[in-house]
Parts: sequence; C-alpha cells; structure tokens
Amino acid sequence: MYYSEYSREQLLAEQESLKAAYKKFLDMGLRLDMSRGKPCAEQLDISVHMLDIVNSEHDCKSKTGLDCRNYGLLEGLPSCRELFAKLMQVKPEEVMIGGNSSLNMMFDTIATFMYTPVCEGAKPWLFEEKRKFLCPVPGYDRHFGITEYFGFEMITVPMTESGPDMDVVESLVENDDTIKGIWCVPKYSNPQGYTYSDETVKRFAALKPKAKDFRIIWDDAYCIHDIADEGDTLLSLMDECRKTGNTELPIIFCSTSKITFPGSGVAAMAAGEKTMEVIHRRYQSQTIGYDKINMLRHMLFFKDLDGVKAHMLKHKAILKPRFDMVLRKLDAKLADKGFAKWCKPNGGYFVSIDVMENTASKVVRMCKNAGLVLTSAGATYPYGKDPKDSNIRIAPTFPPASELEIAMDVFCVCARLCAVEELLAKA
Amino acid sequence: MYYSEYSREQLLAEQESLKAAYKKFLDMGLRLDMSRGKPCAEQLDISVHMLDIVNSEHDCKSKTGLDCRNYGLLEGLPSCRELFAKLMQVKPEEVMIGGNSSLNMMFDTIATFMYTPVCEGAKPWLFEEKRKFLCPVPGYDRHFGITEYFGFEMITVPMTESGPDMDVVESLVENDDTIKGIWCVPKYSNPQGYTYSDETVKRFAALKPKAKDFRIIWDDAYCIHDIADEGDTLLSLMDECRKTGNTELPIIFCSTSKITFPGSGVAAMAAGEKTMEVIHRRYQSQTIGYDKINMLRHMLFFKDLDGVKAHMLKHKAILKPRFDMVLRKLDAKLADKGFAKWCKPNGGYFVSIDVMENTASKVVRMCKNAGLVLTSAGATYPYGKDPKDSNIRIAPTFPPASELEIAMDVFCVCARLCAVEELLAKA
Repeated sequence: MYYSEYSREQLLAEQESLKAAYKKFLDMGLRLDMSRGKPCAEQLDISVHMLDIVNSEHDCKSKTGLDCRNYGLLEGLPSCRELFAKLMQVKPEEVMIGGNSSLNMMFDTIATFMYTPVCEGAKPWLFEEKRKFLCPVPGYDRHFGITEYFGFEMITVPMTESGPDMDVVESLVENDDTIKGIWCVPKYSNPQGYTYSDETVKRFAALKPKAKDFRIIWDDAYCIHDIADEGDTLLSLMDECRKTGNTELPIIFCSTSKITFPGSGVAAMAAGEKTMEVIHRRYQSQTIGYDKINMLRHMLFFKDLDGVKAHMLKHKAILKPRFDMVLRKLDAKLADKGFAKWCKPNGGYFVSIDVMENTASKVVRMCKNAGLVLTSAGATYPYGKDPKDSNIRIAPTFPPASELEIAMDVFCVCARLCAVEELLAKA
Repeated sequence: MYYSEYSREQLLAEQESLKAAYKKFLDMGLRLDMSRGKPCAEQLDISVHMLDIVNSEHDCKSKTGLDCRNYGLLEGLPSCRELFAKLMQVKPEEVMIGGNSSLNMMFDTIATFMYTPVCEGAKPWLFEEKRKFLCPVPGYDRHFGITEYFGFEMITVPMTESGPDMDVVESLVENDDTIKGIWCVPKYSNPQGYTYSDETVKRFAALKPKAKDFRIIWDDAYCIHDIADEGDTLLSLMDECRKTGNTELPIIFCSTSKITFPGSGVAAMAAGEKTMEVIHRRYQSQTIGYDKINMLRHMLFFKDLDGVKAHMLKHKAILKPRFDMVLRKLDAKLADKGFAKWCKPNGGYFVSIDVMENTASKVVRMCKNAGLVLTSAGATYPYGKDPKDSNIRIAPTFPPASELEIAMDVFCVCARLCAVEELLAKA
C-alpha cells in the first residue's frame, strides 16, 4: 500500500516502527561511504598488472621508436590517440591526450574560452556581461562547479530517459546568444544512467546556436562502462556533426579514470579542427607534453580496444552484483510505498533516486548521523540547490559488498521515515 | 690574437680556412641536436628502477594508509609535500603537488590571475588595459611564451652574475602598477647558469611593488642540479619574505623533470597563504587530484632529500664531462679570438654564449645547414628577438658524449666564420 493511502494512525504506527529501526542503526556505530563515484579496491586490483609492464627492463620506446621517458610529442602517443579516437568515436587526428584527468581538460577548455575567443568574431567570455550555460538536471556536480567558478548563470534543462529535453535545449540555444555551452554526459548519464537516444544526438548535431561560440561539452566518461549484459549504444556525435556540417560544435572528453586508476589514468579530448587550433595554441604555451610513460603503460596493458573491452567485463563482474543489490533493496523496501522513483541503469556509476519532495536533505542528514555518508542532497543541481529537495545520488561502487546491504537498509529506513514524517506534517 | 686586431688579409685567410673546415662538416652529413635542455639517455637510465617500485606486489598505500590508486588528496601526498618543501625552501603546508610539469603550473597560475583577482582590491589581469611583465634576459623562452600568449608587454631586465639588475627591477616595480610580475630562475639561471646572490634575494624580498597584485614567479627548476663539485647556494626567498612581511610576493615552482623523467616527473608549487587560497580555489574546481601513484613511486625511490641528493650525484657524473668538454672547446677555439663571451656554470642545463653582435642568427643557421640543431637565435629574449642578435644557448646534455665534441667543433667554426665575415663586411 502506498504511504499516500495510509491513514494518520497507520502513518504514526509506521513512524514508530521506523524510528525503532533507525535507533538500531544508530547503536551500530556504522561507518559507510556511498558519497562519490569511486571504484572499489577489487576494481583497482584488476589493473595492478599494468604497473608491472613498464619497468627497468623495458626500453620505454613507443611503436615508432620514441623514448617515452623524455620530453616531446605534445599531442600524446599516436597509439593512444588511436585508442581514444575509438572510445570517443572520432578520428585519431582530432584527439589530444592530456594528463590524468578529463575534468582538468574540461576546466582548462572553459578557462581558455574565458580569455581567448572560441572562434573568429567572438569575444573572450570574461568580456561577456552575461554568460549562461545549460545544465541538464540532475547532473554532475563537478561540471556545475566549473561553470559556477567561472561566473556563468546556469540554466537547468530537464533530463528525460532519452537525454536532455531537446525542445527546451533548441529553443534556448537557438534564441539566446548569451548561452555559451551545455554540459552533457551522453552515455550512462551522471546520476541517472540514461543514454542519449539517436534522435537526441542527431538533434544536438543539428543545433543552430544563436551564439557562434556555443559549444557542446560532451563528457563521455562512461563510454564503455556497461553493467547490464546488454549495454546501451550511443551514436557518434562527431559523425552526426560531419553530416550537418557542425563539426566545430562538440568538444568531447574521456578518460581511463574508471577503467584503470582514478588519478593515475589517462585523459583525452577531441574537437573540430578550428576549435582544436584554439585549444592547441594554449597547450603549446602550457606544457611540453603529458606523461608518456603512463600512456605507454596503458597501451601495453590494453593493446587495443578489444583489450579495453575485455577489461571492462571484469569491472562489470564486480559492479553488477552491487547494482543488483541496490536495486533489489529499493524494490523490496520502497516500491510498495509509492513515494520514491529510481532508475535502473545499464551502466555508469550511480543510481539516482527521487525520494519524497522536501525530504532529500533530511534523508541525507539522517543517514549521516547513522554513519552512512551520501552525496550531499542538491549536489546534482547547479549551486547545490535541488528545487524539489528530492534527488539523491547513490554511488554503489565503493563500499565493500558486505557493507552495501546494511547501507541500503539504512537509506531505505531514512527515506521512509522522512516520507512518513513529511506526510504527517502536511496532514 | 683577437679577430679585432686582424688585418683584412688575415681575416680573408682565416675566412678561407674556416670555409674549408665548414665544407668538411657539410660533407659529413651530421645529425646532432643541442636545441633543448633534454636529459640524455644515460641520465634517464639512472631512474629506471623507480619504475619497478610500485608494482602489482605493492599495496600502493601511502605512509598514512591511503590507497594511492584511488581519488582524493588534492594537495598531494604529505611525504611528497615535505620533500618539495625542502627543495623549495618553504613549509610543507605551503606546497601544492601538481601533475607532471611545473611549466603547466606556472601557466595555470598566470591563467588564473587573468580571470580572477590575485588579491583583494585587484582586478583580473584581462581587465587591465595595459599589463606588463619583467623578463630578465637572456632567459627561458617558455616563460616568455606564457606572458606573450596572455598579451603582456614584456620588459627586459639585464641579467648580471648575481641575478637581475635589481636597481632596474626596483625602479620599475616600485613605480609602475601595470607591472604584474617577473620571471626568475634563481638558481643556475636558464641559460647563463647564474645563481642569484644573497643580496639579490633579499632585495626581492624587500620589494615594495606599486601593484598590489605583483608577484615574483620563482622557477626553482635547477634547485639541486649541481655540475661543479662545489655547487652554488641560494637563499630561501620565502624565509627572507617572512622577515620583510612580504610572504604573498613569491610563487615558487619546482619539479623532478630533470631529476627523474621529463614528462613523467612530479611538479610542485608554493605560495603565501592568501595567494595560495586563490590558486587553491581554482584547483578545487579544476581537478580531483593529481597522479598519486607517481608521487608514491618517487617517494619510495628517493625516501627523502638525502636520497635525491645522492641521485643528483649520478646526474653530475654524467653531465660534468659534457660541460667540461663544451667549455674546453670554447676555450681552445674561441678564447684567443676575443669576440665571444660565455659563462662557466656550476649547475643547470646550459652554457650561454654571446657570439659577435649581429651574427647569432647566422651562426645558428649555418650550424643547422651542417646538421647541428641549436636553440633558435633570439629564443632567450621575449618575442624571440635578441636586440644584439648575439646570444646562443648551448644545451650539452642531450647529444651522446661522442657527438658533443664534433658538435662543438661545428659550432666554433660557424661562430668564427660569422665573426670574420661580419668584420669583413663592416670594414
């Protein structure tokens, strides 16, 4: 029976029983963390042999004979550019290999456009009195953090199961030249795990932005991160843009942070020729080149795309039971109460849950008091403000499997208790 | 006998003989590179065992038990901050560990100040109609490249054996609030190998800049890179600034690019508390953290400062014979001709030579035609323009020792031939 159908007496009884359950969790002195999309130790273990490959016995030469230990090759190892081209569905010559973080590359890209025009006829964004950025919500807090840092007004766009609401995107982008970009996680979106439909990708490729310096930030963070046996597929945005003549629109990012080691992976980006020229001019002043030994380490470990795919199956084997457990718990404990909604992602790193409106912050606070750290409520919205105070991002990857069950029990009790108390207060 | 004392006949005879020598080099089809401060293969070899340390058998835990394979710890490993604090002569809490490149950290620092005020009451440098930067010359081309990229007017300051001419620096900095910074390589300066005297460091610490957002960019790239048995010592700028109350003035940079592997080393920076707050705010939006496995690799390899010092002795053993050879050749082939001047550095990566005025470009061109690539003439000056067309930077580290002798022979013949022809043309 749905909570909304409960009588006041039934709600009060449920409250008592949930309070007692919560009290038990309090007494257990738990210390659980589901706050960030961090791989768990078992996931990191499957990449440790990568650390053996480039050793003192290895000559550290690339395929073309280049000594990877020394300076040079600003754009990165050719073999690495080829691999990332496949991951990002672009051409190798469109790829620039960076350091350890695609977030860093995204930040630097936005930073560049703050002081350098994106294209001829545009001005540095710092000189734009008003500058706006589209933020599909719920979304990734660190994306929103970058545009907040740079003083953008962030306009939210509702997410749907097929991607951002493209009617909204088109009407905003095609009529407002102060809108300079949009944050996208097109595959297994953070946090809902939605993959943009073919139609959505085609509509992105067909956009006619009012601002000539509008760019699509296409963060393909989970391009190959399936959990389900049948993973989602994403159309190549760049290929679609070739058809529409819009190749300067997308700037695409990717990394191995959640393939090998977060913080010690390899990141990459791709963009159209003219846009990349602007970015490349910055790179030429910014660095002599990124860590080629780490690129070599990755390439020798994976060899090619098939190697990466085989590796991802090992991640899936670790993650699928965790996601299954989270979803099973939600089904068992929340489904019949009717106040919460969640997604069943085929990949990515999160389960996104909408609890009863006006209770998300309280749920997160109660979980924290019971020793379970969740992503802050509101984090999936610009400025950390969820207007409905309803969305909570669950990151099931990091806690040991043994702790995940109890963590979800705590979460479900808190979500239910807050829902019951909200209904009682409103009644 | 000095060329300046040669008769026309003597010059013509010398020209003939040098032309014949040059012709021989042309016929040899040489392929030599002394263009950049790149370590040679033997130098890289002394660090290869670092690649064995963090392997699949290692738990990748830091001293405090942190799993270095995962996200976290924006400022870098504490042990690494301690080591760099000693190298940069600052406190560990003033240190931020970065990626693989201190150049990248310098670029990002200047970039930050383009769009964010350095301190209260200042404005982003992009909003300054005029912005100037002091460039001691000869200096490092990549420094000048950054301020050129960001549209600074670069004001040259003459270098002396004890550092930049501080009378000039003080009079400029203390009277012109459009001057926002100065590039410094305080130890074994690039390219001359001069180390700033105690007095110079004290005068930097006592600067009273007209612009409150003036900063000293203190690139301590060669802090521990002795070639001579008795290396130079550099006073701690930060300590001196503590005495003068000027701790917000310096921003200090350092890396292991020329200690372990260029491109796969660890870089770091340090700054006063308030300045670091501004930079730290940027880092918080820019990244989750840098490559901790590589930090761990370095720390396990070196253990502590003594470990680094012992390692640098191995570099010295490789480099000293090369620098000796270069200086011996210059002494033997150029000293008695009286038209060239050069420095005998106690450390660093370069030998700076002033050939006869108006001939540096021609010398570099002639060397190139004979298969010897040198740093472009003028590269040691802002905008690549040496007003006297006289300074050439020799990088003796990269070519195999066997090639260095012939490379210097080529260089000396070209320098002499150009000098003779310049004298003939002027006569």
